[in-house]
Amino acid sequence: MGMTMKAKASAERVEANSADLLLDATSALMIERNTVDVTFVEIAQKSGLNAALIRYHFGSKLGMFMALLERDAGPTFDDLERLVQSDMDAAQKLRHHVHGIIKVYFRYPYMNRLVAALAVETDSETARFISERFSRPLANAQKAILEQGEAEGLFRKLDPMLFYFSLVGACDHLFNARHSLKYAFGIEDIDDDLRRAYAAHVTGILMRSVLVQPEIEA
Amino acid sequence: MGMTMKAKASAERVEANSADLLLDATSALMIERNTVDVTFVEIAQKSGLNAALIRYHFGSKLGMFMALLERDAGPTFDDLERLVQSDMDAAQKLRHHVHGIIKVYFRYPYMNRLVAALAVETDSETARFISERFSRPLANAQKAILEQGEAEGLFRKLDPMLFYFSLVGACDHLFNARHSLKYAFGIEDIDDDLRRAYAAHVTGILMRSVLVQPEIEA
Repeated sequence: MGMTMKAKASAERVEANSADLLLDATSALMIERNTVDVTFVEIAQKSGLNAALIRYHFGSKLGMFMALLERDAGPTFDDLERLVQSDMDAAQKLRHHVHGIIKVYFRYPYMNRLVAALAVETDSETARFISERFSRPLANAQKAILEQGEAEGLFRKLDPMLFYFSLVGACDHLFNARHSLKYAFGIEDIDDDLRRAYAAHVTGILMRSVLVQPEIEA
Repeated sequence: MGMTMKAKASAERVEANSADLLLDATSALMIERNTVDVTFVEIAQKSGLNAALIRYHFGSKLGMFMALLERDAGPTFDDLERLVQSDMDAAQKLRHHVHGIIKVYFRYPYMNRLVAALAVETDSETARFISERFSRPLANAQKAILEQGEAEGLFRKLDPMLFYFSLVGACDHLFNARHSLKYAFGIEDIDDDLRRAYAAHVTGILMRSVLVQPEIEA
C-alpha cells in the first residue's frame, strides 16, 4: 500500500524470481533423480526457499507442474507453428521437427512423464486441457507436414496418429529410460554428441521410410 | 506338520493361487488406472485378499513388482532367444520381433513404466539386475539380428544402441500415452485392430529404413 512504485516493482521482481527459482529447482530435481516424483520438501531444500512459497505462487503441486510444463514446452509451440508456416519443403520441415523434439527432450527429459503423471493424477478436465495444450498441437503440426509432403509428392501416405505415437516414442525413449542407458549400455550421461547422434539416427530411420524416393537423402 | 501329503499339496496350491491372484489384481489395476502407482490397499481390494499376503508372498512391494515383471516379461525372452537362433533371414526376424514387442506392450502396457519405477526407487544393484534381466537381452537380440542382416547384405549399418532406444520407444508410446490417445485423438481403448495397425506402421517405418533395398518389401 505505502510502497513507492520503485519498491513495488522490485518486490514483484523478487516474487517472479522466487517462482522461477522454484521451477528451476523442480526441473533440476526431476533431471537428477530421473523421476517426476518430487516432494515440496525436496523442492524447498533444492531451491533454498520456503515450501509455503509453492502454494503461494502455484496453489498446489498440480499448479506448479502445469507451470513447469508451460515454461518448458510452451515456447516450443510458437517455433513449431513458424516451422509449419514456413516455405520449406515437407522433408526439410520434418527433419527440423525431429531435431527440435529431441532438443526439447534432451533439455527436459521428464517432459512426457510429467504429462503422463498430470493426466493420471488429475480430473479429466485437466487431462483434457493438457492434451489440448501439448499433445494436439504437436499432432496437428505433424499432420500438416505429412499432408504437405504427400501433396508435394515427396512422402508416401502415412497415418498421422500412428506416426505421432511412433515418432514421439522414438524421440523420447533415450531420455526417458536413463536406467537402461546406464545399466544395459554403461552410459551415465547424455552429452551433446549422443544427443546429436540420436537425432541423426531417428531422422535417418524416418526420412528413409517416409520419402517416396529415399535415395535423394545423402 | 500334522498335514497329510494331500492336504499339504492342496495348501501349496492355494498359496500359489493367492500369489497369482495378487499379481493378476496388480496387473489389472495398473492397466485400468494407467499408472504403476498402486497401493497394497488397492491391490487387496481388487484381489479380495488380505494385504498381508503381499508381504507373505513377495516380502515387499519391490519384491512383488519384480515378480510381476518376471511373470509378464520372463517367458518372452525364451521366445526371443528361439527367434534369434532360428534359420529365418534377418528381415523376417526383425518383423517378428517388432510384432512380438508390440504384443507384449499391448498386453502389459505398464511394462516400461514398471521397469523405470523399479530402477528409480531401488538401490543400484536392483536397477542393475533389472537392466541385465530385461533390457540387455532385448538389446543383445536386436544387435544379433542387425549383425545378421548386415552379414546377409540385407540391412544397412545401424548403431544397435540407438536402434534399441528408438525401437523400444516407438513400440511403447501408443500403450504408454493412453491419455494422449484419449484426449488428443478421442480413442478410449486400444483394440486388436489398432494394435495390428500400429505393428504394421512401426514395421513399415523400420523395414523401409533398415533394408538396403526397401523396394523388396510389398
